[in-house]
Amino acid sequence: MPAADLAWLLAAFALVLLMFPGLALFYGGMTSSKNALNMIMMVLSTLGIASVLYVLVGHSMVSGNSVGGLGLIGNPVEYLGFAGVHDDTGSGGPEDVFWAAFFILFAAITIAIVASGAAGRMKFSAWLVFAPVWLTLVYFPLAHWVFAADDAEAGVVGGWMLNSLQMHDYAGGTAVHMNAGVAALALALVLGKRRNQAERPHSLPLVVLGAGILWFGWMGFNGGTAGGANFLAQYVVLTTLLAGAAGMAGFCLVERLRDGHATTLGLASGMISGLVAITPSADAVNSIGALLVGFAGGAIVAWACTWKKRLGIDETLDAFAVHGVGGIVGTVCVILFAASNAPAGLTGILFGGSWDIVWREIVAITVTCVYSFGMTYLIAWGLDRTMGLRVDDETELEGLDVTVHAESAYDFERGSRMGSGLSTTAVPDVSGTPGASEESRSSPAAT
Amino acid sequence: MPAADLAWLLAAFALVLLMFPGLALFYGGMTSSKNALNMIMMVLSTLGIASVLYVLVGHSMVSGNSVGGLGLIGNPVEYLGFAGVHDDTGSGGPEDVFWAAFFILFAAITIAIVASGAAGRMKFSAWLVFAPVWLTLVYFPLAHWVFAADDAEAGVVGGWMLNSLQMHDYAGGTAVHMNAGVAALALALVLGKRRNQAERPHSLPLVVLGAGILWFGWMGFNGGTAGGANFLAQYVVLTTLLAGAAGMAGFCLVERLRDGHATTLGLASGMISGLVAITPSADAVNSIGALLVGFAGGAIVAWACTWKKRLGIDETLDAFAVHGVGGIVGTVCVILFAASNAPAGLTGILFGGSWDIVWREIVAITVTCVYSFGMTYLIAWGLDRTMGLRVDDETELEGLDVTVHAESAYDFERGSRMGSGLSTTAVPDVSGTPGASEESRSSPAAT
Amino acid sequence: MPAADLAWLLAAFALVLLMFPGLALFYGGMTSSKNALNMIMMVLSTLGIASVLYVLVGHSMVSGNSVGGLGLIGNPVEYLGFAGVHDDTGSGGPEDVFWAAFFILFAAITIAIVASGAAGRMKFSAWLVFAPVWLTLVYFPLAHWVFAADDAEAGVVGGWMLNSLQMHDYAGGTAVHMNAGVAALALALVLGKRRNQAERPHSLPLVVLGAGILWFGWMGFNGGTAGGANFLAQYVVLTTLLAGAAGMAGFCLVERLRDGHATTLGLASGMISGLVAITPSADAVNSIGALLVGFAGGAIVAWACTWKKRLGIDETLDAFAVHGVGGIVGTVCVILFAASNAPAGLTGILFGGSWDIVWREIVAITVTCVYSFGMTYLIAWGLDRTMGLRVDDETELEGLDVTVHAESAYDFERGSRMGSGLSTTAVPDVSGTPGASEESRSSPAAT
Repeated sequence: MPAADLAWLLAAFALVLLMFPGLALFYGGMTSSKNALNMIMMVLSTLGIASVLYVLVGHSMVSGNSVGGLGLIGNPVEYLGFAGVHDDTGSGGPEDVFWAAFFILFAAITIAIVASGAAGRMKFSAWLVFAPVWLTLVYFPLAHWVFAADDAEAGVVGGWMLNSLQMHDYAGGTAVHMNAGVAALALALVLGKRRNQAERPHSLPLVVLGAGILWFGWMGFNGGTAGGANFLAQYVVLTTLLAGAAGMAGFCLVERLRDGHATTLGLASGMISGLVAITPSADAVNSIGALLVGFAGGAIVAWACTWKKRLGIDETLDAFAVHGVGGIVGTVCVILFAASNAPAGLTGILFGGSWDIVWREIVAITVTCVYSFGMTYLIAWGLDRTMGLRVDDETELEGLDVTVHAESAYDFERGSRMGSGLSTTAVPDVSGTPGASEESRSSPAAT
Repeated sequence: MPAADLAWLLAAFALVLLMFPGLALFYGGMTSSKNALNMIMMVLSTLGIASVLYVLVGHSMVSGNSVGGLGLIGNPVEYLGFAGVHDDTGSGGPEDVFWAAFFILFAAITIAIVASGAAGRMKFSAWLVFAPVWLTLVYFPLAHWVFAADDAEAGVVGGWMLNSLQMHDYAGGTAVHMNAGVAALALALVLGKRRNQAERPHSLPLVVLGAGILWFGWMGFNGGTAGGANFLAQYVVLTTLLAGAAGMAGFCLVERLRDGHATTLGLASGMISGLVAITPSADAVNSIGALLVGFAGGAIVAWACTWKKRLGIDETLDAFAVHGVGGIVGTVCVILFAASNAPAGLTGILFGGSWDIVWREIVAITVTCVYSFGMTYLIAWGLDRTMGLRVDDETELEGLDVTVHAESAYDFERGSRMGSGLSTTAVPDVSGTPGASEESRSSPAAT
Repeated sequence: MPAADLAWLLAAFALVLLMFPGLALFYGGMTSSKNALNMIMMVLSTLGIASVLYVLVGHSMVSGNSVGGLGLIGNPVEYLGFAGVHDDTGSGGPEDVFWAAFFILFAAITIAIVASGAAGRMKFSAWLVFAPVWLTLVYFPLAHWVFAADDAEAGVVGGWMLNSLQMHDYAGGTAVHMNAGVAALALALVLGKRRNQAERPHSLPLVVLGAGILWFGWMGFNGGTAGGANFLAQYVVLTTLLAGAAGMAGFCLVERLRDGHATTLGLASGMISGLVAITPSADAVNSIGALLVGFAGGAIVAWACTWKKRLGIDETLDAFAVHGVGGIVGTVCVILFAASNAPAGLTGILFGGSWDIVWREIVAITVTCVYSFGMTYLIAWGLDRTMGLRVDDETELEGLDVTVHAESAYDFERGSRMGSGLSTTAVPDVSGTPGASEESRSSPAAT
């Protein structure tokens, strides 16, 4: 790989890595404070799980030569333990060490999004079993279908969706976003509703921080998928900027018209929805198109959140609406108004394009959603019948942070005040721990 | 553009994008917790507003061929809807898609700084009108004057300040910082003081986080302005590092001498002040000079904050002091001790340089400040007389988060404690729900 | 330097800069809320101290020609005031402006880690004296020994550890991590224990955020040490990813087996421990090796934390365990299972490598730890006997934020609730400031 391309890709890789604390705080801020740490640990644990699994078999299953030439799954022992991956061949092929590292992050971020569907009620041990099984049976096949390109010269057969179906998905609208959103829904359905439906986001500044970091990371995600420091990379960072910006506007406008208030949670959710929608379409629309993709993503996801709630489904942090519906909206936008002068060179049907693109995209959407939902439901159901997925009621009401992790997210004690002539005893003890209030009672300043 | 240059610029672009959540949390942390979300939304909404406006007319007005060759404003329909901007011409000219994306962020960050002047008392609807009007009438002209270079070969006429006045402003001391600082002051004056002058920053860790992210982003802002991965870029990241570091020292030293305490808010403000001061001067001073620029920026801004408060002006989060005064200090430093062996090749008058630079810089400062203050005051006054800028008293005292956005930044409930043999009912509820306050009244510390 | 290499290094530099707010919040979140700001200021002040000192004498002492050709210390006046450093020679030598900037951050991050050992009980004024003395007497010599390469052609003699001992340390396991960890221990021993040993981390979301930012920055730290956008850079970002991921697993597994709970603090600490362990070994192990390095780092540090507590040492935030022990574990891993096909080309003794590497690494570890501990203890003891290092008991119990900086980290007032028909008076005033509660009592909503 030319050094200049690698220079950008190394930065893009780091940006995508920061999406993990970003997503952890985005979801952690959205949960109640008694479950925030559990949510954070579910998200961050995916990096550990995906790293080990990818080195062992994941890279082989995703990027390996298709077993039997069928385009269904890569040969799982081709790169066993990353054998051959980190040799300095300079070939630029899929065995490049950089791409192996980059794709670990793609796998981990997908299962991390799924975690949100289980917020506040899943056993941590069950998560540590569910996550690797799901990656192996759901993500690796889908990623092979979508990301593995044929290489006729080297005699390598890739995934069927990319090569046979020839659908268009710029950077993972199918294998990452629809897949994660639909899987989060399936997992939430198996788990059932939370006992306390009145929980609210405990820290919106954390949600905003997380969303902002995700936007930053998305530049690496979409920009890095361009494969180097080229025209495509500059093109997609522009469309990714515009879609995130328009997504905020779309979501907040629906909120304003429907509820009378535009909220910060809506602004952050709209940002992410716009970014999800541009993921499959970033190279296929022009600037006006990118604004429309983002706006449609934000507005339709805002509507989907309400609709889902009315159906009584507790897919807790709306991953299905944001990533599932958002991903579908972005793909439909490609069908409708892909611009022929954009890098992808597709023409949407509104601009007189061929109907060819319509059925290819619809097959891709349908297969992704059906496969992901069915397999995820099956895995979750199987684990629920064997080890049990859900914590008991007392644990859930007490909160998972204290019961499962023996921690609490915050302990503000006597910190949140000024020393303005105020005696220590007059300070309400926020932490509520007996030890802390005793300590403050016996401190010299209080006597 | 060579791929190696683009590789750095793509990263720089992403860094500048992260400045938005950084600025949102920097200002959000500085407000009281009842207005934090409103502040965050004012800052982040600028990305939506600037993106749409820039695609429509902004890029044309800033980078287009000057109307009538006067250097006052670019032809507003030249790049209507980014027409021609995202074609792959490979020309490296102003029509490059990368620069269009980069300059959207410059526009958005400038109006985002202005938002701070209105903290805690402006209607959100009025903001959504004020911001695009201000960008069109104040920022776009100023950016054209300062950023649009003549291109004699292509027959393109740029802005008068850059080409006719030939003032030196490395990366936006005038059009971005002085402009934003002065405009924040004008907006604050039209709005009037807050009712409650005793409000304090509700979360200094957020302020520190925001400031740290801003420093990080500034490397992209100043480093990206170098136009590629060249000697100038390494030079300015060094001076930008040194000035931020010395800015902390300057501000804290003034605090220590004046108040007896160096504060975290001062450290963060000093960091930003030093960075503002180095923005116009990053390519014009050497390492010792960069330390002096930063130190002077920090120290003088610290003094300006107090002075402004004594005048009874409630320009709430000190954008005028930090960005307005800081920007002027940086420009004056260029006049005084520009080093002839720095990339800009200017010689400060202390080193025997020509007095030529003095009047050019003073004209640039004066025109920027007068134009920005006058126009902003006029726009704000006009909106105040028509739609009204300020929320009513009850809304202000109640806080904008709950009243305008139907949200609160935090809801800590029962999360902030350890599960140490404590029954659930005994936990004081910090969130302020009725049940909780009853409890806190009966808690040991309160009796 | 080729532009493509510089493109990556500029990004890497920015990433390392973000480690400072990351570290400040990582440590700030771990302290009690009454000392959080003091911790943050100790960390961030290092950028100011190191910047000034490096421009003056640091760069000369680290990268200058060894005095007397002994390899002990660079000529302290060689680059006085960065003379000659920022000229555009294009030579690519140590006088490159980029490397000067990069190494400022290395110096600052090392002393910033040391700060953690003094959490909650050190005079801020004493810190502002201790830090520059420590950098001059401990860090600069060690960095010269480890980082300064001989340049026979130019007649430049570098440090003895790198050139004479020829030990292997990829990116600072000795001069940065072991050094900082051991120094934190020595400083903590001189200071003595905190009065209140029951303090807990006040905000684990901040700790997670900080750790996540550190991982991101580590890509710049290890990736930038590769010197450009080359094969080595992609190699080490992969091993750095894997070791951080496995570090989380190692630490959490020990916690689970020992205490029955895997905690968020453990997950974050394990992540950093894995990253510390891979710092000296990132170019010397393969993927499986990187997972082992990280896992061993996490697991052994988890064990070291407990062991240290049993000895009754209050090295408050475990820098000794994480950075000292972690750094030693990483270096021992190089000895044991360095892979000959990794870029460093070393062969670990388990793979039949020469015993040569054993004694070289052991000498490097021993000299680093002994020198750092002895000198740090001496400096701390000297300052304690003269100006005094520790705050008085009342200040310590009251907390350093209020007493030293006249600030508190948080002021949540009435922000943390919804406007759900709740009268203002019923809200407990968390902030505890008399003015604030009076204001809330007299607000219209309360009448």
